[in-house]
Amino acid sequence: MDTYDFPSSQALFERAGRVIPGGLYGHYGLALITPKTPLYFSKAKGPHFVDVDGNRFIDYMCAYGPSILGYNHPVVDAAAREQVNHGNTVTLCSSVMIELAEKLVELITIADWAFFAKNGGDVTNLATLVARAATGRKKILKINGGYHGVVPWMQEPESGGTVDEDFANIVSIDWNSISQLEQAISDHKGEIAGFISSPYHHPVFQDNVLPEEGYWATVENLCRREGIVLIVDDVRAGFRIDLRGSNEFFGFKPDLICLGKAIANGYPISALVGTDALREAVQGVFCTGTMYFGSEPMAAALATITELIKIDAAALIKQIGRKLSDGLIKVAADNGFDLKVSGPYSMPYLRITNDDDMTLHFDWIARCVERGAYFLPYHNHFISTAHTDADIEETLGIANDAFQSMKQ
Amino acid sequence: MDTYDFPSSQALFERAGRVIPGGLYGHYGLALITPKTPLYFSKAKGPHFVDVDGNRFIDYMCAYGPSILGYNHPVVDAAAREQVNHGNTVTLCSSVMIELAEKLVELITIADWAFFAKNGGDVTNLATLVARAATGRKKILKINGGYHGVVPWMQEPESGGTVDEDFANIVSIDWNSISQLEQAISDHKGEIAGFISSPYHHPVFQDNVLPEEGYWATVENLCRREGIVLIVDDVRAGFRIDLRGSNEFFGFKPDLICLGKAIANGYPISALVGTDALREAVQGVFCTGTMYFGSEPMAAALATITELIKIDAAALIKQIGRKLSDGLIKVAADNGFDLKVSGPYSMPYLRITNDDDMTLHFDWIARCVERGAYFLPYHNHFISTAHTDADIEETLGIANDAFQSMKQ
Repeated sequence: MDTYDFPSSQALFERAGRVIPGGLYGHYGLALITPKTPLYFSKAKGPHFVDVDGNRFIDYMCAYGPSILGYNHPVVDAAAREQVNHGNTVTLCSSVMIELAEKLVELITIADWAFFAKNGGDVTNLATLVARAATGRKKILKINGGYHGVVPWMQEPESGGTVDEDFANIVSIDWNSISQLEQAISDHKGEIAGFISSPYHHPVFQDNVLPEEGYWATVENLCRREGIVLIVDDVRAGFRIDLRGSNEFFGFKPDLICLGKAIANGYPISALVGTDALREAVQGVFCTGTMYFGSEPMAAALATITELIKIDAAALIKQIGRKLSDGLIKVAADNGFDLKVSGPYSMPYLRITNDDDMTLHFDWIARCVERGAYFLPYHNHFISTAHTDADIEETLGIANDAFQSMKQ
Repeated sequence: MDTYDFPSSQALFERAGRVIPGGLYGHYGLALITPKTPLYFSKAKGPHFVDVDGNRFIDYMCAYGPSILGYNHPVVDAAAREQVNHGNTVTLCSSVMIELAEKLVELITIADWAFFAKNGGDVTNLATLVARAATGRKKILKINGGYHGVVPWMQEPESGGTVDEDFANIVSIDWNSISQLEQAISDHKGEIAGFISSPYHHPVFQDNVLPEEGYWATVENLCRREGIVLIVDDVRAGFRIDLRGSNEFFGFKPDLICLGKAIANGYPISALVGTDALREAVQGVFCTGTMYFGSEPMAAALATITELIKIDAAALIKQIGRKLSDGLIKVAADNGFDLKVSGPYSMPYLRITNDDDMTLHFDWIARCVERGAYFLPYHNHFISTAHTDADIEETLGIANDAFQSMKQ
């Protein structure tokens, strides 16, 4: 199998470095950990993108989540274009904001209302302010290694530019640990405003971990008993596990859910939804942004959600993801490797196990990438409804060839 | 002159209240301070919008800044659509990000590099992290009543959901006060990482205030002497005073400039630009967001900035704003009112002076609004390049009729 080269990506990256510190930043910069990799796309469609060197990829990152219906979905793009023709960001709102809020309230089980912003981190931060406003308490409980965005308190202590005071009210516990949760509650009795967590644990550079049996029911009970606002950060997993909120799949009811990424198939919008009990609290928090009121992303979100419901997207994505995961595990085994797939099928995290420092795993992923299957070695993947059986078959062929080449 | 009614806006607002706490929020919610006002648009074009009741307005808020070329500018929308056809938010960046960074570095005098995010508040917050990372200091100096977004430290102490620790490292001084700046520097010797300020003072509910002669030169010297990173929050004023950065008009050089609002004529993107001296510091700060890498807003920004340069937009807007301001002052005087216009001509803040509690002023603005000139009684306005002499003439007629009706 021929392998790809990336001279145009490299040339652009060097050009970028002159006007963008580091050339790439954030999670797009982290992708540079793979030494030979495409960096700039020229065309995206469905589950594929073509890079600036003309290499075509089957994409299992889906823009780190947004592309849930596949890139350039005709229904979503048409709705966006139609709204832009009427007006995008205007001095007044568009009524599409109301339709979108109604759609979310109808779909998301716990939702009595919705608030909109731009990025996931806008609404995870807003959720903590709502929890504080509702309870009059200061502390926020979070999971070690949980990612909620880049507002300083969400970062790791000693991250560049943060200060001690950013973390003064943050209490961190391990995922799946009821004993640490109970300890934290007892250590900070009556002080914890909210507990924020993703519905399952999806750190980077580590296997992803589903909740243990009974975990979320116990968490919910403890939060209710202690008057702690339970916040699910469903920004990453939302719409890929259960359209009604990932919590529904895991059998519990939070007070607030943060949504983003897949909500508008790539148009920039995020949402906080919550229960009636927190209606007054969210009204008491000042939350706004010039760009929050753009109506193109709202129209795109409405079209995306309507389409997701119509095709029962979460079930479909799970099915496709299962085919991929089962297939990859088999291909690995056939080649004498043990591939562990963790997290839900719709967002599989891959790792070759007989490999303490991940060297083998990074090598295998790199060989898949240079053969046209875009995986990342340290992050969960994302499946879209646009991935077909043919894509999976082609991917398994690439994976097999990558393994074969490692044995040479 | 017939006046407008807003039954459809009211009906939508009541419907919104069921699924969006307060019906409207943030700055769009603040507009409800005017009792009789349009709340939802149906169509926007150039300097006008039509509300859901079919009322047409000459718009002097320009979406609170973004609409600098007028709504639905054909060149900008075509560039956005073209980019979407290639792909919007994708697993890789588009090279348009590099072109946009190059364009900003070329245009903005102090800029050696650019970083992109979504909303203005993303980059004002990032700027403070960069200042801290660069200096190893904690304190941020800001102006009383200055607005930089909704990250807790930017809010007023005791705002809903904020806690004391959010403000532990914030030092606030009055606008235009060199003595308070010197006092703050002496009180916190060697502790101040950055000073963030808009290029002129544009609070709400108050006259806007330009810098006093020599103010910025002194500020710049003091910051240089003390190793304080000088940050201009040009989110609101950017591109309307001087395309090279509003600081160029006021004759000084900051280290970082925050841009947003008008940068892409209504597509959601913001930017931090800075000097080479801070290149390493910004690389050391973790800043990212799933939606930050959408390429439609980048293409729109590139097209917007190219167009702004082509038509010398800042000069044009100033000229149009001056006609409006001079005309409104004359119309007011003809009717026996003293109208004070503060701030730059391109962003005029209006206030009737013989009116201690602003009752007269609010009344006049409301009468303008129900006659088709959309002003806000407590916020600076925004002029676009799309406002024509005919728009100004029509507006002056409306303003005159509003004054006349007050005297009846």
